[in-house]
Amino acid sequence: MNYRIKDISLADQGQAQLEWAELHMPALMSIQRELERTKPLKGVRIAAVLHVTKETGVLMKTLKLAGAEVSLAASNPLSTQDDIAAALVKKYEINVFAWKGENEQDYYDNIRSIVETKPQIVMDDGGDLHAYLHENNLYSNVIGGTEETTTGVVRLKAMEEDGVLKYPVIAVNNAFTKYLFDNRFGTGQSAIDGVLRATNILIAGKICVVAGYGWVGRGIASRLRGLGGRVIVVEANPLRALEAVMEGFEVMTMKEASKIGDLFITATGNIRAISKEHILNMKDGAILANAGHFNVEIDVDGLRKMAKSRRIIRPYTEENVLSDGRRIYLLADGRLVNLAAGEGHPSEVMDLSFSNQALSVLYIYQNRGSLMPKVYDVPQDIDERVAKLKLDSMGIQVEQLTKEQVEYSKQWRYGT
Amino acid sequence: MNYRIKDISLADQGQAQLEWAELHMPALMSIQRELERTKPLKGVRIAAVLHVTKETGVLMKTLKLAGAEVSLAASNPLSTQDDIAAALVKKYEINVFAWKGENEQDYYDNIRSIVETKPQIVMDDGGDLHAYLHENNLYSNVIGGTEETTTGVVRLKAMEEDGVLKYPVIAVNNAFTKYLFDNRFGTGQSAIDGVLRATNILIAGKICVVAGYGWVGRGIASRLRGLGGRVIVVEANPLRALEAVMEGFEVMTMKEASKIGDLFITATGNIRAISKEHILNMKDGAILANAGHFNVEIDVDGLRKMAKSRRIIRPYTEENVLSDGRRIYLLADGRLVNLAAGEGHPSEVMDLSFSNQALSVLYIYQNRGSLMPKVYDVPQDIDERVAKLKLDSMGIQVEQLTKEQVEYSKQWRYGT
Amino acid sequence: MNYRIKDISLADQGQAQLEWAELHMPALMSIQRELERTKPLKGVRIAAVLHVTKETGVLMKTLKLAGAEVSLAASNPLSTQDDIAAALVKKYEINVFAWKGENEQDYYDNIRSIVETKPQIVMDDGGDLHAYLHENNLYSNVIGGTEETTTGVVRLKAMEEDGVLKYPVIAVNNAFTKYLFDNRFGTGQSAIDGVLRATNILIAGKICVVAGYGWVGRGIASRLRGLGGRVIVVEANPLRALEAVMEGFEVMTMKEASKIGDLFITATGNIRAISKEHILNMKDGAILANAGHFNVEIDVDGLRKMAKSRRIIRPYTEENVLSDGRRIYLLADGRLVNLAAGEGHPSEVMDLSFSNQALSVLYIYQNRGSLMPKVYDVPQDIDERVAKLKLDSMGIQVEQLTKEQVEYSKQWRYGT
Amino acid sequence: MNYRIKDISLADQGQAQLEWAELHMPALMSIQRELERTKPLKGVRIAAVLHVTKETGVLMKTLKLAGAEVSLAASNPLSTQDDIAAALVKKYEINVFAWKGENEQDYYDNIRSIVETKPQIVMDDGGDLHAYLHENNLYSNVIGGTEETTTGVVRLKAMEEDGVLKYPVIAVNNAFTKYLFDNRFGTGQSAIDGVLRATNILIAGKICVVAGYGWVGRGIASRLRGLGGRVIVVEANPLRALEAVMEGFEVMTMKEASKIGDLFITATGNIRAISKEHILNMKDGAILANAGHFNVEIDVDGLRKMAKSRRIIRPYTEENVLSDGRRIYLLADGRLVNLAAGEGHPSEVMDLSFSNQALSVLYIYQNRGSLMPKVYDVPQDIDERVAKLKLDSMGIQVEQLTKEQVEYSKQWRYGT
Repeated sequence: MNYRIKDISLADQGQAQLEWAELHMPALMSIQRELERTKPLKGVRIAAVLHVTKETGVLMKTLKLAGAEVSLAASNPLSTQDDIAAALVKKYEINVFAWKGENEQDYYDNIRSIVETKPQIVMDDGGDLHAYLHENNLYSNVIGGTEETTTGVVRLKAMEEDGVLKYPVIAVNNAFTKYLFDNRFGTGQSAIDGVLRATNILIAGKICVVAGYGWVGRGIASRLRGLGGRVIVVEANPLRALEAVMEGFEVMTMKEASKIGDLFITATGNIRAISKEHILNMKDGAILANAGHFNVEIDVDGLRKMAKSRRIIRPYTEENVLSDGRRIYLLADGRLVNLAAGEGHPSEVMDLSFSNQALSVLYIYQNRGSLMPKVYDVPQDIDERVAKLKLDSMGIQVEQLTKEQVEYSKQWRYGT
Repeated sequence: MNYRIKDISLADQGQAQLEWAELHMPALMSIQRELERTKPLKGVRIAAVLHVTKETGVLMKTLKLAGAEVSLAASNPLSTQDDIAAALVKKYEINVFAWKGENEQDYYDNIRSIVETKPQIVMDDGGDLHAYLHENNLYSNVIGGTEETTTGVVRLKAMEEDGVLKYPVIAVNNAFTKYLFDNRFGTGQSAIDGVLRATNILIAGKICVVAGYGWVGRGIASRLRGLGGRVIVVEANPLRALEAVMEGFEVMTMKEASKIGDLFITATGNIRAISKEHILNMKDGAILANAGHFNVEIDVDGLRKMAKSRRIIRPYTEENVLSDGRRIYLLADGRLVNLAAGEGHPSEVMDLSFSNQALSVLYIYQNRGSLMPKVYDVPQDIDERVAKLKLDSMGIQVEQLTKEQVEYSKQWRYGT
Repeated sequence: MNYRIKDISLADQGQAQLEWAELHMPALMSIQRELERTKPLKGVRIAAVLHVTKETGVLMKTLKLAGAEVSLAASNPLSTQDDIAAALVKKYEINVFAWKGENEQDYYDNIRSIVETKPQIVMDDGGDLHAYLHENNLYSNVIGGTEETTTGVVRLKAMEEDGVLKYPVIAVNNAFTKYLFDNRFGTGQSAIDGVLRATNILIAGKICVVAGYGWVGRGIASRLRGLGGRVIVVEANPLRALEAVMEGFEVMTMKEASKIGDLFITATGNIRAISKEHILNMKDGAILANAGHFNVEIDVDGLRKMAKSRRIIRPYTEENVLSDGRRIYLLADGRLVNLAAGEGHPSEVMDLSFSNQALSVLYIYQNRGSLMPKVYDVPQDIDERVAKLKLDSMGIQVEQLTKEQVEYSKQWRYGT
Repeated sequence: MNYRIKDISLADQGQAQLEWAELHMPALMSIQRELERTKPLKGVRIAAVLHVTKETGVLMKTLKLAGAEVSLAASNPLSTQDDIAAALVKKYEINVFAWKGENEQDYYDNIRSIVETKPQIVMDDGGDLHAYLHENNLYSNVIGGTEETTTGVVRLKAMEEDGVLKYPVIAVNNAFTKYLFDNRFGTGQSAIDGVLRATNILIAGKICVVAGYGWVGRGIASRLRGLGGRVIVVEANPLRALEAVMEGFEVMTMKEASKIGDLFITATGNIRAISKEHILNMKDGAILANAGHFNVEIDVDGLRKMAKSRRIIRPYTEENVLSDGRRIYLLADGRLVNLAAGEGHPSEVMDLSFSNQALSVLYIYQNRGSLMPKVYDVPQDIDERVAKLKLDSMGIQVEQLTKEQVEYSKQWRYGT
């Protein structure tokens, strides 16, 4: 065994958390039962850089029970749940290198540690592991990999276009059952949960500014409205902006929105969606949170440099006092607020995402040799199988098409 | 001039309607002003099978002002507004062959009449014109065409796969600014408007069953909920079914839903989404409406054969009394309820859809010779241009990316 | 028989409408069945000034079947459905004095006609009948009356305070099952239905300004949001204004709202909620509708005087062109849009309201002699009986409190 | 100084929390500034039994700065924030007797301690203090009191009806700005926040059963729907049940709902809204939470007695395994989940409620001698003043009625 974690004695507490997650991950559990029986990944070395949460724990356990040798590092310095790390080490012999509150050096050291296991399949959340392997020419053993996030997929596609990608990667993020449920429903709820745990503010009556109207942004916008907020959307793409307008949201530039917002949440996937200039427009008491993968969407450095004083007023809530006395509140250092100030996605959401992960890992291994060094979508039948497993677990029946109806959809002749 | 319409004396009334539509179609009007100036379609023969509404009128006028010779027939026997037909003939010299209440023979005769103009570009809504041209080998003059609906695109793709499609067709339906706004926002509101005009029922407190959770179905489901209905979704695709569940809707089979629903609206694109067996399950007073393109989604014949008596109790509302006395109400003969019992889509929606149509016709003509006999999507830059024109007309500004932000989205290196 | 209506030959058409209404008024129908059996109003003379709709028809028929002699005039010059008037005269021997499109002289003549029947019980909608009886000292035969609207109740309370009210009046409007469902759910849906029939605009993406956040206003605001509108509320009462804010609406003065709105709907119960000054602020294409009882909420005269030209562009839609070319659209002459441009409340809503009316008329008659000349609320047990009848008709069960639970709610001792 | 708290060294941390609360309580802060200047409560002895949160801290500080001598005990054994208790003692010399995790004996001892200060004005949350004073004849110094909750007001009205109430009490709960915002918006959000902190479940797609459709219940139902839940309402009152139906909710008995719910939240104000029999109907994994004042709404003892095993699986989440293996999760021991598992109401909500408290205490003192031993509503002008202070702090303007409009609302004459 090889590991580096905070406190192994937290294993029992972590085990209870894993059981709680398993109760809410019926699709992945049904896959786990099958893989444990058939052991299709016997002896395969897998390295994963993922948020070390109870749901990731269930995924890692699933791969381990399927026969694999599994190593795990954190995809974010603040997102590790130390009890889960302990349980994975002690109860399931998974090599974990992660703890809550890693510094930047630790973070990269831990990635290096799992790379030293010479992984055959690599799983990533954000693209740092894939980038590390490529920049250091450490991909020779790698059959293929998966990528969990939009951010990571964008990076991998850029690599593919530059002709430097060295192994096939399945973009789990592009599964319908991932991007829709994880990004929209998962982050929609959990980002707000993170804001509420950090601040305990009332959403009703607040002017809430959401930057970015991709799946994450629209999930957040919808939930803020559902809690009584008045929601303003800032978006660069005219198609998305128009959709937001038609959903009844106000749409304007951040330059305008920054003057009136009470709460700002970024989900653009881009840098400085909230800049120093925007912050200078803001009202006393404005709250800034980020729900995007990287902590670049809010100009944190710019804010702190402008502040004449700074303190932590509540856990994850940093007060920055501007020179004229206005107070600006930054949550979770501008890191993704649902993980840093909350517990990340609910297990039910990760059930879908991680069912796709488990089946994609299996797919890569079973199709080794026949895949190109490209970014692949999750195969459609995996996607639909995951949806079906979930509906079954909820006791919900889809409509069964009649033979006549199946026929009908294939016709094109005149007069049908 | 060559035309066949109900009453030319309705032209002034139709003209007022056209002006009203123009006020609500700012994107298309801005295109119209440009095309009128440049006349890029000078002498091109265009034949269209579309719902003859005021919005179609503005599109036809746009093409005429661009220089084309335009013929128009109806894509549905009940959907023609006779005053619009009159105005197009009298004020703009467009050859219209359409009136409200055509019988089946009339319907096909009218299509034949416009085909006799030897059109170079053909515009269709549902695919009947494309099918007619192909079945009768009448496509020799045709440079290309457009198709407005999902239903039509499915038929054309089947033709393409069978290798029989003879000219390029742009699937206007697949433009984001079409399928999103037209199908979701347009039909979402107008289908319910049709139901309310036919019945004047209260939606609040009603159990509303929506068959099909595509863009049309979800638009309807969302609006019914917005009016206080309790909404049940019936859907065969597990991905869509799961999405409906996560939006908070009940999902079940029509077999179950038919026992408890007060109002049923079909939007499946398939036949007999409501069958005789389903109808036999229904409560006294159940109301049936169809929002799909063809009148095949409800088994109208089956219902009428089962009925011991039948009468029109209100315009577009047919009472069918079953043998045990239960009364089942069929709206608009099972034809699409938003057009037959209402006025179809609001002008604002058609503004987007028909801006795509106008620019797609222009694109086909300007790229004649270089397109293959395939189904094409609307070019992305047309789609975005339409969205931008619409936002401009509403005075709404999208966020402008900084140079730094544009750069950022292209990076993939480690540590960004 | 004594009557003055448009066309008696419309009786059969009206009868079908009455049957349709009866299907959707199960609570009133259950009361009707009982009163027809027991005839408790035998020979009582009743005069009513109500909107002559199919639902009023069912109420009038109920009173007639209960044994009363019934006369009916219209409470609004535009709201009469002529086929219903015909059916009530021909099928049920009710004395109707009403037609669609009465002028002001007709309107008052018709009220006079029903007063000439020397009514014992008077039913009113807006207070014009009560005011007429008092101003002309014609109340000597009157045992008591009912009043349907907020507007009327306000007038009657002013009369009570001035010490001039001469008979007891039950404020049906104050029944929970009336004001909540009729004002909020009924007008909420039907006002928008009226706007859509008049204009066929798309609500999604529109800036909708609702003046007044009483029950009617909040019903309209909620439905506009449910259809995708961006809703602004204008309200003078700080408690109501704060509630609107907490529901996520924007709240501002009409002075500000008038500059940005696309659609304005008034529901204040007061005059000139939209004044000439407000109209001068408005955008080209702005649409004005009133959902309040009287046509005083929009300054119609002021608008028309400012207009350099005016025409009816669609039924119930009047275009007023201001001197600088801006076009302002006034719906239904500023009269209540749900009745004038639509069909008024759905039958389901009136079922509750008119069940209260029927039971209140009975209550007044049975308690004649013991009631004071005051404005009374509907007795609580009538209100709850109506709710229970409605839930029963929908097959919905309320929770049954256990004996222990009933006891518990009466305790106050320490340590419970 | 006289106090009994957990740890005085937490005072600085508590002070930061108070500052955070003050930022979000602008209405109370504006009252505080005035009272600090005028000292109208100089020397008055006040005893309060309230949840010891940061918002209560701001209220206590306000009364202290107004000149009063203030003692404070907790109204719930689990709801004290120990850092606030410390700050109130150390920074503001308030006599606090409260800590998180009191046992039943401690709870009553602490109430006794503050009663020993011979209070002149008493403030209560739930009615335990009022009951204690009456049962032990300790009310001789009491000028009057306030009561925060529905539960407490019900108890006090029962006392008034029994003729045993000995001093006037202002039912702060009955202020519009209290019951509407606190019960509906406050508990609506915070109860769900408590559930999410305890469980981190996804609400979207869950079947959520809300028992009770009073202001608290409807707040919860609305927020659950806003988060994507499918909401079922259980309610005994037919008027409320009908309203829930018209809002689009499913309504049924708990007997039926218990078979299908995933999450149950009680807000009935009554005992055993969820009984043993209901629990025996439930699905594996069902979650039970209470949002009502007392921990009597779920039959906690019954559940625990049925369980074959029991453990805390997460903080505030107790797993009870039934004899057939089904797992039922009880949150926060069935105590009110928003306080026990979360932080209670957001400061913004308490701003309104506690502004009413502060002004009501002042009103009682200034009107001493002239009030009867009865339950009084908050005077209307206090209520409106609070709403206005809040709107002002948000920069929101209400409409100003013209002189003409004020006149109009007083008229009743014919033909207006």
